[in-house]
Amino acid sequence: MAHPLTALEPALAETANFMDEAIASVLPEASGPEGRVIEAMRYAALGGGKRLRAFLALQCGRLFGVDRRAMGRVAAAIECVHAYSLVHDDLPAMDNDEVRRGKPTVHKAYDEATAILAGDALLTAAFGILASHETHPDPHVRCDLVVKLAGASGAHGMVGGQMMDMSAQTQDFDLGGITRLQRLKTGALIAFSCDAGAIMGRASREARHALAYYAQDLGLAFQITDDLLDLEGDPATLGKATAKDNTAGKATIVTLLGVERAREQAQRLAAQSVQHLEIFDERADLLRALSGFVVARRH
Amino acid sequence: MAHPLTALEPALAETANFMDEAIASVLPEASGPEGRVIEAMRYAALGGGKRLRAFLALQCGRLFGVDRRAMGRVAAAIECVHAYSLVHDDLPAMDNDEVRRGKPTVHKAYDEATAILAGDALLTAAFGILASHETHPDPHVRCDLVVKLAGASGAHGMVGGQMMDMSAQTQDFDLGGITRLQRLKTGALIAFSCDAGAIMGRASREARHALAYYAQDLGLAFQITDDLLDLEGDPATLGKATAKDNTAGKATIVTLLGVERAREQAQRLAAQSVQHLEIFDERADLLRALSGFVVARRH
Repeated sequence: MAHPLTALEPALAETANFMDEAIASVLPEASGPEGRVIEAMRYAALGGGKRLRAFLALQCGRLFGVDRRAMGRVAAAIECVHAYSLVHDDLPAMDNDEVRRGKPTVHKAYDEATAILAGDALLTAAFGILASHETHPDPHVRCDLVVKLAGASGAHGMVGGQMMDMSAQTQDFDLGGITRLQRLKTGALIAFSCDAGAIMGRASREARHALAYYAQDLGLAFQITDDLLDLEGDPATLGKATAKDNTAGKATIVTLLGVERAREQAQRLAAQSVQHLEIFDERADLLRALSGFVVARRH
Repeated sequence: MAHPLTALEPALAETANFMDEAIASVLPEASGPEGRVIEAMRYAALGGGKRLRAFLALQCGRLFGVDRRAMGRVAAAIECVHAYSLVHDDLPAMDNDEVRRGKPTVHKAYDEATAILAGDALLTAAFGILASHETHPDPHVRCDLVVKLAGASGAHGMVGGQMMDMSAQTQDFDLGGITRLQRLKTGALIAFSCDAGAIMGRASREARHALAYYAQDLGLAFQITDDLLDLEGDPATLGKATAKDNTAGKATIVTLLGVERAREQAQRLAAQSVQHLEIFDERADLLRALSGFVVARRH
């Protein structure tokens, strides 16, 4: 594979800046006596994060010539869903995390009720953004985005994955179970991010399938690397607590395979993800480079 | 006004039955290791509740000849949103309620994490249902429903109202503030329920406006009656704890106006709501009767 990372890192940094503006422009401004929940939404969704999902959406949209501003709205909706999931996952009744992206989590910076409501409002806003006529002139495209996002983030998607993750504290999953957990918890939204670009660009069935396979392998490689970093990483670099899964005695792909085999598996998946992109020209080079990046990253 | 309640009560009972089937058919079946969250969704959304919002949606749809099965899907989506809001509002970090509709609340029957996730998944499902081609052949209609539901239930709608309600524990609102709180917390979704019938039936601007005014007055009359029942009602009949607002020292329209003036205000709003319906023929009679019902109800 070996696609150079030199072009990728500036592109990721540029996306992070672009997305802060894109997200800020689709979220309401804090006003009225309900402004507190809007402040908390903006606190959760702005100024941090790798914007991996937004990057995937924007790059996949670019493959099919999708207008960048419109794709930015879709990417913003996806980042709102990602942010909501982090806010709710961090709650005391879930993972009970106090630091996220180097800042106090929303329930620490505000309070639990505000965090629950800010998550709810971010999720709600995402669907409104996708269905708005500003996102795409064709309402079939907008409805398709809404249906697919609901599938990716609902009970048989991201929420189902978090449900399994909560059960993993008391229930032992085997490698198949953990793989399903990860596919639901993080894989589904990563896959939607790629699919959203294809939907916006009315991509061929072949191109959509290629991106779906790419996303599936990339998502799992990303997750295994996350688990490796959780085990070995430095909390200061990661901006969140580490070794939590291990302390909680929860199985991960890393604890089931061991560090070395898990690392090899992540590398293999990353290489495989690139192979699915062979039908695309050099406009997919940043996606190819991303596969190397997700397994090489230190945070 | 005095529209007879004799036809209304069987119609409400019939709607409650119809909706249990409609909601059951749009929610996923519990399966897979993530099945626990689906069980909790079904526990929260099925087998209880007045189905006031569904009734409004179905009756308003009927005014414009909307297919009842399709309207049932929209009404089911609305009831999912209502159910999610109750699940999250009942959480320990919010209103900390242990009984709802005569049953243990979701976080008591399951646990807090499952309740948060079940609420999230119900909200997510609602948008997927609305955007599905089964709901309406015209995707413009489906997108309009998604955009309007997102507005009614988000930060400047229901979630914003709940945010204000949480603030009301420490902050005194005057009558204008409380009215805004209620308009957001319960009024917005009640108004959307009526508007959804109009959207599905491509109603005229005039008819939509009439229903919007009807819903606004009805919603406030409903809320004042709720507050009166909270103060005076019997927990066994209501199926939930009572006198909570009063104990918590929270202002309501009832505490600000006093019981007698609040009761008069509810009656006045109910009568006024009926006046907005004068452009409709006898097909609006159940909506007219409902106005009397919401202020006369004992639970």
